[in-house]
Amino acid sequence: MFVTIARARRLLVAALLLTATGAAADAARDTATGLSPASIAHARGLRDQALDGSLAWDMVEALTTEVGPRLAGTEAEARARDWAVQRLRAMGFENVRVEPFTIPGWERGEERAVLLAPFPQPLEITGLGGSVGTPGDGLEAELVPFESLAALRATAPGSLDGKIAYVSHAMQRTQDGSSYGFYGTLRRVGASVAAEKGAVAILIRSIGTDSHRFPHTGQMRYAEGVPRIPAAALSNPDADQIERVVRRGQPMRVHLAMSPQASSEAPSGNVIAEIVGRERPEEIVIIGGHLDSWDLGTGAIDDGAGVAITTAAAKLILDSGQRPRRTLRLILWGAEEVGLLGGYEYLRAHREQLPQHIIGTESDFGAERIWQLTAQVSPAGQAVVDIMSELLAPLGVAPGSMDKAGSGPDLVPMVEAGLPSLRLVQNGMDYFDLHHTHDDTLDKIDPVALDQNVAAYVVFAWLAADSTVNFRR
Amino acid sequence: MFVTIARARRLLVAALLLTATGAAADAARDTATGLSPASIAHARGLRDQALDGSLAWDMVEALTTEVGPRLAGTEAEARARDWAVQRLRAMGFENVRVEPFTIPGWERGEERAVLLAPFPQPLEITGLGGSVGTPGDGLEAELVPFESLAALRATAPGSLDGKIAYVSHAMQRTQDGSSYGFYGTLRRVGASVAAEKGAVAILIRSIGTDSHRFPHTGQMRYAEGVPRIPAAALSNPDADQIERVVRRGQPMRVHLAMSPQASSEAPSGNVIAEIVGRERPEEIVIIGGHLDSWDLGTGAIDDGAGVAITTAAAKLILDSGQRPRRTLRLILWGAEEVGLLGGYEYLRAHREQLPQHIIGTESDFGAERIWQLTAQVSPAGQAVVDIMSELLAPLGVAPGSMDKAGSGPDLVPMVEAGLPSLRLVQNGMDYFDLHHTHDDTLDKIDPVALDQNVAAYVVFAWLAADSTVNFRR
Repeated sequence: MFVTIARARRLLVAALLLTATGAAADAARDTATGLSPASIAHARGLRDQALDGSLAWDMVEALTTEVGPRLAGTEAEARARDWAVQRLRAMGFENVRVEPFTIPGWERGEERAVLLAPFPQPLEITGLGGSVGTPGDGLEAELVPFESLAALRATAPGSLDGKIAYVSHAMQRTQDGSSYGFYGTLRRVGASVAAEKGAVAILIRSIGTDSHRFPHTGQMRYAEGVPRIPAAALSNPDADQIERVVRRGQPMRVHLAMSPQASSEAPSGNVIAEIVGRERPEEIVIIGGHLDSWDLGTGAIDDGAGVAITTAAAKLILDSGQRPRRTLRLILWGAEEVGLLGGYEYLRAHREQLPQHIIGTESDFGAERIWQLTAQVSPAGQAVVDIMSELLAPLGVAPGSMDKAGSGPDLVPMVEAGLPSLRLVQNGMDYFDLHHTHDDTLDKIDPVALDQNVAAYVVFAWLAADSTVNFRR
Repeated sequence: MFVTIARARRLLVAALLLTATGAAADAARDTATGLSPASIAHARGLRDQALDGSLAWDMVEALTTEVGPRLAGTEAEARARDWAVQRLRAMGFENVRVEPFTIPGWERGEERAVLLAPFPQPLEITGLGGSVGTPGDGLEAELVPFESLAALRATAPGSLDGKIAYVSHAMQRTQDGSSYGFYGTLRRVGASVAAEKGAVAILIRSIGTDSHRFPHTGQMRYAEGVPRIPAAALSNPDADQIERVVRRGQPMRVHLAMSPQASSEAPSGNVIAEIVGRERPEEIVIIGGHLDSWDLGTGAIDDGAGVAITTAAAKLILDSGQRPRRTLRLILWGAEEVGLLGGYEYLRAHREQLPQHIIGTESDFGAERIWQLTAQVSPAGQAVVDIMSELLAPLGVAPGSMDKAGSGPDLVPMVEAGLPSLRLVQNGMDYFDLHHTHDDTLDKIDPVALDQNVAAYVVFAWLAADSTVNFRR
């Protein structure tokens, strides 16, 4: 069913409102949401101002140029925090600060893979984040192919003793990115599954949808009580090559060398800036993106774009001369890539104020246009979401599921603890072409699409923060 | 003028032929070219057979998989020769052989560049072929930008003492690849131009049209009597990044480390296979592609495709049960990338038989569709080219300049010595996206376009070899 009963009722109410006299309808809506006609008009004006050109391009240009790659826990991520604090203060935000924390450190070393037999040639790989290294000179072993993680799980323990497992399954494009959860599981748990069968290393086809020679990195984890083996991803063309060799039926030998460095404690932090609310300053609406990136690219689409979009939206509100009722809190998260560590740390530090957190969302799915709005809020909150929808429709944003929490990764810990959330869904069709590769650079961002995102975020941010409703179900 | 007088006359003759009785026209054409109606029909049949599917995909799939990268002078290029000889013999070609020669050897080592100041971050580079290395631990110096090779040439001697030159000019797409000569000059001569001004190294924007983080390699040369300095190319996104930093006006420092290995003598060779002519076996028509590739990709579009297209065309003739009058010689050239060394060696070894070389062409511009035919031949030869044009028109191949020699690079030495030539011009709009990068891999080739190329080559090869005309002007 495309139209649920709840949704049909809302449409009916909306239709009735349209047929009522404008003023009476506006008054009814104001009473229900706290959003006066003037407030809604203000949101509309901010939206149109964003479409005319926002600060977002300059922000992402500066972050990717002046800081560049900014792996969590490194000196580069620290420079990104300094850069952000300085910029946010200069822009005039209030309560600009870093909430510091520490994380396990990991940095990439040399990485090299060679197909030794039957057809000697180099392979393009990248180590997965958190992987252990190989012995000093690397390791050499037979490569054993599996068509899926399920097939690897199903193989007999001991059958991979001394061998390297290879899993070939290939994620395909989806607009909402929904295949990533399933296919990404291989990256996250594959090493320990292979180690349980005796493997000395695992190579996977990149969790990516391009056909360029860029391997895709990303965080992995080891299960307790299982030997820790090196894990790396092949670029898609290299994975294709391996599979062509597999079809020739001759034994394959691979040499793999990786020398990452791990440390027990490395500095990270969340950067926070605010526009303090005029009536309910203790109530908080959250927007933001994450400041850290993988080390390979310059973190343009992941997540310089999110930082830029949400900062530009907040700056439009700051410069509008009107404060919303509630506090708008911009959070530029740290250490997202390595396990949402900034998000967990924020929940730990702010658990007592959780009830004062009204609603939140994060931009962390690239820089393409937003095409859908999904939410999971109270009926009172839904009335505000419906107003957002009205203002977003001209941007090409259609309402999607209103029974779907979704907030961006850094708010997952808060959402799991009860924070209402909403998602402004970007078009992710090409997102996994670039995600976690060397090729995540500024040239991939379209400034016009970026401003469409800012327009949507400013509508959300203003209306959520200027409303009086409780979004909790 | 789109229609020259000579061309108008040819069109008139063609129009007259159409109005003459078919049989009389055919007889006149046969007398002038030696091409009987049956011979032309045979060419048409071979063409259509190619379009129905040729051997080309299997060839390029096998070469790029079973050999992979095959840098001139290396053991991998030797494996490519073995692979080719074995395949060509198994296919049934005659006089399959290697004509060996030696070349200066060069192999890439470690390569690394880092922007140290003002914004520390790694840069994606590749050393240019033939470049010397840096001192052991690399060198660190100020980076000085120039907008063009001309600007670098115009700077004062001594002004770059101890510095690294950077030249930013960017080649744009052209269908016929004609901008490559101009922009590629920077790659070929830039190091010595910079060294004359005192530079200790040169970085250039890649001679490439993509916006991915693949630097483009390619051969360079040192001028006599000028210090030899390391030369490398930045990927286009990295070049963009440097130029954004330049605009911020702060001094830039770069660390560069490269450790290539050169040797005085390395083995290479041309692989030759033939279909011996039935009437004039001593007369030779040449087709082919080059067997060597750069080391970064697997040499799919450069030039596995050319090897595959021309071998597949020759195989269609071989399997047709009819020999052409003249010998068709398939040459899979060695050491093209490092200076057309196979082409020069062939001329040296066969100079005495030069008059018996009737006409030649090479496929070395990728794997996209052929859209144009250009030639520079005698009036008698032009009559054959016109027949070729008639048969190529249904493939979307239009006649271009008939006063333009063009043969593919390996025949340049022979053409300069007087060999008539013809060019089946491929659509090169995207060629320099991939050219000389890690990303030159099989997945970039469209099998349907590949077969269109085979169809065009088989028309050329059959008609040139079955004709009796002298193509020399």
